[in-house]
Amino acid sequence: MKAEIVSVGTEILLGEITDTNASFLAGQLPPLGIDLYWVSQVGDNQARIVEVLKRAWGRSDIILITGGLGPTEDDLTREAIAEMVGEEMRVDPALLSKIEERFARRGIKMSPSNVKQATVIPSATAIPNPRGTAPGWWVEKDGHIIIAMPGPPAEMLNMWHTETLPRLQQRTGGAIIFSRTIKLFGLGESVVGEMVSSLFSSSNPTLGIYAKSDGIHLRFTAKARDQKAAEVMLAQSEVKAREILGEYIWGVDDDTLDSVVGRLLVGKGVSLAVMESTTGGMLTATITEALQSVKYFKGGLVANSAEALTAYGVDTNLISDYGVVSAEVAQAMAEAARRQLRADVAIGITGVVGPDEVESKTVGTTYIGLDNGQEKKTIRGVYPAGDRSRLKRWTTNAALFELRKMLLELT
Amino acid sequence: MKAEIVSVGTEILLGEITDTNASFLAGQLPPLGIDLYWVSQVGDNQARIVEVLKRAWGRSDIILITGGLGPTEDDLTREAIAEMVGEEMRVDPALLSKIEERFARRGIKMSPSNVKQATVIPSATAIPNPRGTAPGWWVEKDGHIIIAMPGPPAEMLNMWHTETLPRLQQRTGGAIIFSRTIKLFGLGESVVGEMVSSLFSSSNPTLGIYAKSDGIHLRFTAKARDQKAAEVMLAQSEVKAREILGEYIWGVDDDTLDSVVGRLLVGKGVSLAVMESTTGGMLTATITEALQSVKYFKGGLVANSAEALTAYGVDTNLISDYGVVSAEVAQAMAEAARRQLRADVAIGITGVVGPDEVESKTVGTTYIGLDNGQEKKTIRGVYPAGDRSRLKRWTTNAALFELRKMLLELT
Repeated sequence: MKAEIVSVGTEILLGEITDTNASFLAGQLPPLGIDLYWVSQVGDNQARIVEVLKRAWGRSDIILITGGLGPTEDDLTREAIAEMVGEEMRVDPALLSKIEERFARRGIKMSPSNVKQATVIPSATAIPNPRGTAPGWWVEKDGHIIIAMPGPPAEMLNMWHTETLPRLQQRTGGAIIFSRTIKLFGLGESVVGEMVSSLFSSSNPTLGIYAKSDGIHLRFTAKARDQKAAEVMLAQSEVKAREILGEYIWGVDDDTLDSVVGRLLVGKGVSLAVMESTTGGMLTATITEALQSVKYFKGGLVANSAEALTAYGVDTNLISDYGVVSAEVAQAMAEAARRQLRADVAIGITGVVGPDEVESKTVGTTYIGLDNGQEKKTIRGVYPAGDRSRLKRWTTNAALFELRKMLLELT
Repeated sequence: MKAEIVSVGTEILLGEITDTNASFLAGQLPPLGIDLYWVSQVGDNQARIVEVLKRAWGRSDIILITGGLGPTEDDLTREAIAEMVGEEMRVDPALLSKIEERFARRGIKMSPSNVKQATVIPSATAIPNPRGTAPGWWVEKDGHIIIAMPGPPAEMLNMWHTETLPRLQQRTGGAIIFSRTIKLFGLGESVVGEMVSSLFSSSNPTLGIYAKSDGIHLRFTAKARDQKAAEVMLAQSEVKAREILGEYIWGVDDDTLDSVVGRLLVGKGVSLAVMESTTGGMLTATITEALQSVKYFKGGLVANSAEALTAYGVDTNLISDYGVVSAEVAQAMAEAARRQLRADVAIGITGVVGPDEVESKTVGTTYIGLDNGQEKKTIRGVYPAGDRSRLKRWTTNAALFELRKMLLELT
């Protein structure tokens, strides 16, 4: 089956947003055995959208559209599809009452313009959108499928996983492609590339290396007649990768550092607290991303000044003796967080986030203190200066990676 | 002048990379007065590239191509351009010796496949690429311009700024385009659309409405003979927008809620502290994004349990009398944060982030308490359940928006 992706929105053509929907959808199609030959972006102009859709209709079996399903006058995807297939739009009363309910629940008055989000055409069925007011359209006509989804990535992603993908999977069959991603922290991309160079020669599974915000990802992709055969091939590749890189690997596939750490904390019945300065709340915010965090995370104390450290129970003498940016203060922060919030394990983070040096320590210097009541550990790192938010992200990841190691050793 | 962008590369169609070149180039065209109507991505297949180029040739004055200029067999952009314009590729000796020099300088043996990077056609001149081995092509024929640049963003960006953009600026003249973005919080996209419907009829400046994570953005785009004329037009539109939506507007252009609040805090010499539960550290992490935050932000206390609230100085009697999710506790959190961290103003946030109800309050219920020592204020909101991270983002924005209002009133 041949697919084509069309992204609708003048904001894409003005360069105001990058079309991440297209690359996400593109990555979803190979495992379904669907070939993608064409991707295009078009503005909020009905004639041009219709022109693009007509061409897609002529050469592709499946057209995936995102964007243009909003309530305003410049949202024209529905109108363009209706014009292309030559059908009349009409309001679906059941759909309308769902949208009305949504507004009522929020205590907001529904605007008349939202009524157009309740329209369909005879060839279309609505795809539910629990994250927004715009339902999608699933259109089938003359052997073609058109799938229209909302532009906001969160709404589109949710609709894709819960509604669109399952329906598409029923239609496809044949050879399948499966992938396994192995996630590492603490090594650079080129070093990893050299370490696993022997695995690059394989044509099935293939290997790709990607630098991501949470470290390096190795992605193995296997082509096989069924899922079981693919999984055997991927497992063999994973064994080889683990032999080479074992200690740096912290997760696979959808794992995130916060979910991996969260599982260990739940499994060992251990509670966690945090005191952070350089990361400014990013470590705490990352830990609380995990739905389960309420079970093990007590809280986070974010200090933006030495004064706040003192208010949080860090000994002022330590600060004056060793400086705010020191292994001693990182340890004292972890200990104070553990004590204040009655947690089993705690992390303390201090460092120099820039733009200026602190206490003659260069920008990027970071101390991560870990304390589990019996054992204490301090990691010192110097991350290259230049990008505040990358430094904060790196420090947050390093703290979670080191916490994972400590938790694995905990009996 | 009408432009079209074509991005070449099978890795885009496989979803392995996101086409950020297209969005970058799209954003560069409006100030040049060049209209962009078409963007498409195509794989490393000569027939399909030629087909896309032919269509672009038929409807656009300028075709901007990125990718497909590498040395390997699947790099086919030069071949496709040559086929489309019906010209023969030949090696340019001067270009070849430049590429050979580059390899010699790096002490690497040049591969025979790199020779094709030294080719041109009669209508093409090479565009130097100081960052890589692939020169670009500037093709002029029959009133059309084709500009081919390398795919790696660092090479493309450098070539754009140092070579392509200056040449294009010589060609354009005449009309220029400027934009102004007005940022709102607290109203939905469709309501804003209706309120400013009278402004939609203008064809210059035009108006676009966008739902973003920090609220609704109104973008006015003016076409004029020079910057001054454009700015007058945009200022007139802004006046109208402010008359209609004044109290909801918190910023313009590159403003972020944290930077707007930060400027007010610095200007008024007021310090800030935060105690948050549902937002799990996101408010604190957002405030510390601002480089200046060290001047006014004392710290953030993140509670993931009632126990932590008590440890942070919130009265346990209040919690048992009114519940964790209550206006009273939100106020007590603000007050405790202010006291503990000796801040002038503080925010307290409590609510139900889900997945389950708390104290019979539905998921999405949020209380934001503000306390500036003299005045206290509580805002209650109910955000639709379903998406944890959006709820957290909305609450974070609402807190900063309300803080801004309180700071504006502060004398």
